[in-house]
Amino acid sequence: MTATVAQALSHAESALPSTLDALRKLAQIPGISADPAPNAELAKSAANVAAWMTRIGLERVEVLELPGVHPYVYGEWLHAPGAPTVLLYAHHDVQPPGRPTHWKSPAFEPAERDGRLYGRGVVDDKAGAAIHFAAVEAYLKNGGLPLNVKIVIDGEEEIGSEHLEEFLAAYRERLDADVIVLTDTANLAAGLPSITYALRGIVVADVELRGLDHPLHSGMWGGPIPDPAMAMCKLLASLVDDHGRLAIPGIYEQVQPLRDVDRARLAQLPYEEAAFRKDAGLLDGVAMSGEPGFNTYELSWHRPSLTISALEAAPLKGASNQIVDSARARIGIRTVPNMVGSEVADSLCAHLKAHTPWGMQLTTKVRGSGGWWTTTPEGPAFSACERALKSGFGVEPVYIGCGGSIPFVEPFARVLGGVPALLVGLEDPICNAHSENESLLISDFQKAIASAIHLYDELSRLPR
Amino acid sequence: MTATVAQALSHAESALPSTLDALRKLAQIPGISADPAPNAELAKSAANVAAWMTRIGLERVEVLELPGVHPYVYGEWLHAPGAPTVLLYAHHDVQPPGRPTHWKSPAFEPAERDGRLYGRGVVDDKAGAAIHFAAVEAYLKNGGLPLNVKIVIDGEEEIGSEHLEEFLAAYRERLDADVIVLTDTANLAAGLPSITYALRGIVVADVELRGLDHPLHSGMWGGPIPDPAMAMCKLLASLVDDHGRLAIPGIYEQVQPLRDVDRARLAQLPYEEAAFRKDAGLLDGVAMSGEPGFNTYELSWHRPSLTISALEAAPLKGASNQIVDSARARIGIRTVPNMVGSEVADSLCAHLKAHTPWGMQLTTKVRGSGGWWTTTPEGPAFSACERALKSGFGVEPVYIGCGGSIPFVEPFARVLGGVPALLVGLEDPICNAHSENESLLISDFQKAIASAIHLYDELSRLPR
Repeated sequence: MTATVAQALSHAESALPSTLDALRKLAQIPGISADPAPNAELAKSAANVAAWMTRIGLERVEVLELPGVHPYVYGEWLHAPGAPTVLLYAHHDVQPPGRPTHWKSPAFEPAERDGRLYGRGVVDDKAGAAIHFAAVEAYLKNGGLPLNVKIVIDGEEEIGSEHLEEFLAAYRERLDADVIVLTDTANLAAGLPSITYALRGIVVADVELRGLDHPLHSGMWGGPIPDPAMAMCKLLASLVDDHGRLAIPGIYEQVQPLRDVDRARLAQLPYEEAAFRKDAGLLDGVAMSGEPGFNTYELSWHRPSLTISALEAAPLKGASNQIVDSARARIGIRTVPNMVGSEVADSLCAHLKAHTPWGMQLTTKVRGSGGWWTTTPEGPAFSACERALKSGFGVEPVYIGCGGSIPFVEPFARVLGGVPALLVGLEDPICNAHSENESLLISDFQKAIASAIHLYDELSRLPR
Repeated sequence: MTATVAQALSHAESALPSTLDALRKLAQIPGISADPAPNAELAKSAANVAAWMTRIGLERVEVLELPGVHPYVYGEWLHAPGAPTVLLYAHHDVQPPGRPTHWKSPAFEPAERDGRLYGRGVVDDKAGAAIHFAAVEAYLKNGGLPLNVKIVIDGEEEIGSEHLEEFLAAYRERLDADVIVLTDTANLAAGLPSITYALRGIVVADVELRGLDHPLHSGMWGGPIPDPAMAMCKLLASLVDDHGRLAIPGIYEQVQPLRDVDRARLAQLPYEEAAFRKDAGLLDGVAMSGEPGFNTYELSWHRPSLTISALEAAPLKGASNQIVDSARARIGIRTVPNMVGSEVADSLCAHLKAHTPWGMQLTTKVRGSGGWWTTTPEGPAFSACERALKSGFGVEPVYIGCGGSIPFVEPFARVLGGVPALLVGLEDPICNAHSENESLLISDFQKAIASAIHLYDELSRLPR
């Protein structure tokens, strides 16, 4: 006895306060995957997710534990024989909160202001899980789902789902599905539903330069003794040109130029530089960067970029007049088709080695690389998704890329034999994912739940 | 009834254990002048110094307090009518301890190992004060000094004695003297007594670059949004060339080439590159830096140099894949005759402004600049000092420069009407002043006390 779409929509609307309350409770748990496993907070977070799954009527709910791996949570409902099976994905782990002083309300005390819910992880990606749960609940509390559902809530997405291959090896059969729906991406604007069909990859490397076995007085030694902090600046400065274009030899050789059809799609997307600057929080007078000749969307989604995401020699607070003994940085390179992560890492390491000033001792540690992913957004699953988003948001959806990485997508789609992967999400341009004052637009959250209800219905008619 | 040199030497030798004990107690007080005034630990440190002065028989002992200024301590003994007056200087404030994990024994728990006393401030410059006290005590406990003595122990040397002009204005008359002896400098090698006749100055500036009003996800925004951490690297990298030579326009125009006599003196000093590298702790394979064509002593003492003494964007620990909103650095430029600190600061600021990438918002805050100082080391006071050091160390002294700054020296010598300033000290190449595991070579400490006893005797016969 399957619930109708109308019954499910009505249930979801009246259940919204309790859904938001459950989201708030989950967002109180600082399940930061950058902290090493076993991690008590991530265990709590997984237990909360599992309890939520059980509460809404999912079956075989399990915290999937592998030694030294942050917990994934699994649940399923497989009582629609003959109907397709959808695998729903989100993640419950979060980024570190950043600087406490920069939060207007505490990171782990979710607070509502002006129609947005503020807190670490609320939009990235606990809301993603909550959408699945609310839509599934709306059907199950009214009789049943029109299709079979499996849900995986990742516990290590923010550190690159680094044990995914192990996870897939261990649970491959259980995860078999006809289509995957992943809610961890962005909308181009608030209220504008967006299907993501391209993700950049990432290569992350930690770099250390050591020149001395201890810091020295800059007066006694400055001049004949080279400065490791300056060496680091010169080394990092050599990585990009004055536009921010990567200066690593060979790095663009593997970059596949965008197809005309994709570039035409980009040109049709709404874009206003003033709004883009405002959303980014770019300060007055600061120029935009990037290779000349590419529009902003192409730079963001389809071209490589390099960021220094951490840099430290000595802190200013309490700094003495010293030559530091060493300096450290973390470099992230966003990759696109058809760059090969391991070759990008090799090129980076070779460049660093060739450009290290004064023969400083260089250590480069590649911390991981997630692959880019792209698909051709055509066929019945994408059509179903378009219709569902239009029903939920009342607006025609757009196809976009995403400059970020979701390491889960590529190996999963591959292992499941290339089934369609639908990437939809809730991050809008001012949601501050990964930054302080992360927030969720509650009206879009509600529309996304309605879209999910429509989507399950649409996907239940997928030709098999 | 003046004590004889022999009586004083004998007293100092037998008093050495109690002198070392008093030094240890003083070194237990973390009087860090980088912490703002009023500073309870520096008040404790000043009280300890004052008590020591009183104990050895100095008179008119006072902690000289000016509002908002770390305390200087003063004491005197003026019962040698007709004899010259010597003003003795040292400082009791210390540098911050640096990284606790890098200390082999805690910074503020002085510990003796292999003939050295380890602890923050033991050599820079609490031993400097202790030498004066031990030598004065040795005379006073045996009848009296052969000359009049005034002692000033500075409380803000490590932050550039920044209230010195106020201090001099307030106490000018009291400090009148025929010769100044300052114990805060280095010896070229352990056991090799050295008279310092040139000090470099310093200009310190804090630099901040801001590009964004909050950090951004490096995937979502990397490419079109410029990276403030990269901007800082490029900006700082522009400050020196590949040798470490300053690339700031005009900066060398004011640099006075060394006189032939001074360069000849440098060429005669003992120098071994292997020993220099080892003393610096330069790691294997790391090249030395500096302008080509200058020897190491000239680079260290008589040429300008630039150091990045602090650098921070985001720490690696807990770093997310972010574009930081801002980056900060502290730059120190060592200056030499005839560079004008304010003009160096102006040139630095102009260079930074001209080289800021992507129009980032630049803030430069000049934190202070201390002047270089130099003297012609000739005349009866220097001859007296040479004889005293030879008597105390058993070795002919050498004349050296010092790459560091002692802001006290230049204005003081100037205000006292150009009286001779004798700079002697205890820092040897492996003493780690300003770094972790700072230490004092106890055998040199003992020789320095003997030298001071000889010096007071020698100076008592100065022609007036």
